[in-house]
Amino acid sequence: MAVLESSGITYAQGFRAAGLHCGLKRETRDLALIVADPPATPAGVFTRNMCAAAPIRLSRSHINAEHIHAILANAGTANAATGEEGYRVAVYCAEELAYRLGCTPGEILVASTGVIGVLLPGEKIVGALDELIGRLSVEGGVEAAEAIMTTDTVLKQRACDVPLSAGTVRIGGIAKGSGMIMPNMATMLAFLTTDVACERHQLQRLLRAAVDATFNRITVDGDTSTNDCVFLLANGAAGVELTARDEERFYESLEDVCRGLAHAIVRDGEGASKFIAVRVAGCACVTDADAIARTIATSPLVKTAAHGGDPNWGRILAAAGRAGVDFDSGQIEIHLNGVCTYANGAVVPFDRSALAAKCRAPEQEIRIVLRAGDAGATIWTTDLSHGYIDINVAYS
Amino acid sequence: MAVLESSGITYAQGFRAAGLHCGLKRETRDLALIVADPPATPAGVFTRNMCAAAPIRLSRSHINAEHIHAILANAGTANAATGEEGYRVAVYCAEELAYRLGCTPGEILVASTGVIGVLLPGEKIVGALDELIGRLSVEGGVEAAEAIMTTDTVLKQRACDVPLSAGTVRIGGIAKGSGMIMPNMATMLAFLTTDVACERHQLQRLLRAAVDATFNRITVDGDTSTNDCVFLLANGAAGVELTARDEERFYESLEDVCRGLAHAIVRDGEGASKFIAVRVAGCACVTDADAIARTIATSPLVKTAAHGGDPNWGRILAAAGRAGVDFDSGQIEIHLNGVCTYANGAVVPFDRSALAAKCRAPEQEIRIVLRAGDAGATIWTTDLSHGYIDINVAYS
Repeated sequence: MAVLESSGITYAQGFRAAGLHCGLKRETRDLALIVADPPATPAGVFTRNMCAAAPIRLSRSHINAEHIHAILANAGTANAATGEEGYRVAVYCAEELAYRLGCTPGEILVASTGVIGVLLPGEKIVGALDELIGRLSVEGGVEAAEAIMTTDTVLKQRACDVPLSAGTVRIGGIAKGSGMIMPNMATMLAFLTTDVACERHQLQRLLRAAVDATFNRITVDGDTSTNDCVFLLANGAAGVELTARDEERFYESLEDVCRGLAHAIVRDGEGASKFIAVRVAGCACVTDADAIARTIATSPLVKTAAHGGDPNWGRILAAAGRAGVDFDSGQIEIHLNGVCTYANGAVVPFDRSALAAKCRAPEQEIRIVLRAGDAGATIWTTDLSHGYIDINVAYS
Repeated sequence: MAVLESSGITYAQGFRAAGLHCGLKRETRDLALIVADPPATPAGVFTRNMCAAAPIRLSRSHINAEHIHAILANAGTANAATGEEGYRVAVYCAEELAYRLGCTPGEILVASTGVIGVLLPGEKIVGALDELIGRLSVEGGVEAAEAIMTTDTVLKQRACDVPLSAGTVRIGGIAKGSGMIMPNMATMLAFLTTDVACERHQLQRLLRAAVDATFNRITVDGDTSTNDCVFLLANGAAGVELTARDEERFYESLEDVCRGLAHAIVRDGEGASKFIAVRVAGCACVTDADAIARTIATSPLVKTAAHGGDPNWGRILAAAGRAGVDFDSGQIEIHLNGVCTYANGAVVPFDRSALAAKCRAPEQEIRIVLRAGDAGATIWTTDLSHGYIDINVAYS
């Protein structure tokens, strides 16, 4: 089914959301709440950064709850590197929200994004909870998506219908980028909801697979955050059970929604003016293909050349060659925007000005083919521009 | 002994050099020749990039010769990704030079730097050999250093005296940067000479150690080149044998010269305005320390913050946490320009404006201390600036 960009976290039945400004950021919305009615079976994946933030540590300890009632997320400060005090503030916010929603603190997930090393001002958040709860609505998905943005320039939401045997269910989600992006087992923040009824292990397995195929395959700057997490809540409000027979169909839609959000993060990457798919095929194993794709996708030289529209395929070759993968340099082919520039160990003659014109387009494809096997991998990345520097020289 | 910046490749006795413009670059010198009289015992280390250039492949096959007479190096084209034709041109240049010098082609080392995928124009080089040989002199070290520059803005040479038991010997060298710099077992190009008499295995062992401690510990953009190599020629012209007793003293001077050249490459890194030492201590093993130092030193977020003079230590923590090293986040300390900002799992209060002032200085130090052992590592890196983007958007 087609993925919608006009709906998000409240598209599935039985979810309400809200977002408002509570004073963590200067002007824009900075606090989001997503509530499941009825409470939902949760699944979640978390950053593998060793310095995981307080909200990650807290939500990790809640993700095995039977049901989750709500997700509370803020922008402005990451509550990372804030020690036990940061953890206590995260617990305090969850407790205060649980009290107001009539559930236990263990049924709340929390997430934060923003500057590292700044303590979450718990009073500001708790002081805004009543208003936030009062604003909850099915229309509130957009303001929740706004409230998790940091350097993002566009709001990121996706949704779709999934026709299953016993009836149609819905999946929706929101996400934010757009710097410190090379998720390792999650992405900066992405929240997903569905109204299918699903057993927790099945839900976790599907989310894990979808994240590996989408969020874990993007990079803006190669920096894995301390706060990455993806949550998926399934509340069963559609009255449809996810059967084994329907699992594949549901999974495909889940992956479509995740991919839509992941691509939106790349397209809105800090300073990005190009969306680049790096596809590697013909490798002995997926690990090799992934290493080559990732090395190309994070190479500053490849990314600056892409920014300038320079068909500098030699840098792509050099990046592939330093990926730590053993291959024969006579067995690699490089295709840049559909044009083969290098094969059998030598340059393939090509029309340079025609290729340069293709390299100025906003959508770019780098394709590498080895002759070592059948494994492949794709990584989506951005160019590297003056805009990235401007955004990051004085962020804190 | 003090390392001199006023002398280079011809400081040791019995070496002459020359550089001229033969038409590979638009205007500046692009062809360098270094000749050893008498012929010298060689040592060399080469890039580990799988797509090693033709000159690397040729010089690798010559590095085990008993003696080397000359190094021929060009800028303008890397002769990389040029297949068998590129290899034949490299062989042709070595043959023509050997004929003119009265040695065998196997006694010539070659090196190239410049755009990847462009064949070396052999006729231009061979046509310039007679003039190049005619220009050879002890004063020619500077023009040889000029002739290997690409985006370098300053000439890089270092030299020093080494007083050994039986007399003083000399070491000198030249190098070039300044993009595609994260050498893996060598650096872009560095040539070293000494007039000590030294057995080949000893010489190779000393060079290997010095390169590992210097050139292999720098990065500008994390991109390992297809053409990296370091050569060391020892011609014995000082009439002094390197004894076991003197080896350590000689090694220290060799490392000093290599470090001087390696640091010069970082200081002149593309777009660089800051020289940053990333020092990691207290790790369980050197591999861990190196991984953390290298991840911090290549993080675009750390490097842009350094450019802006932003004391954004949270990005340093986040980079350390994604280095693939298992550690307890409560056991890491971060020191930025001598100020401890994070320890025992929480922020250490510090004077932000005083630290910001230090962060605007051209020399920066990031120091990480774990409590997991005694191993440490240092990587030298640059900031990431608009200048880097400008240089690299349209290089080819």
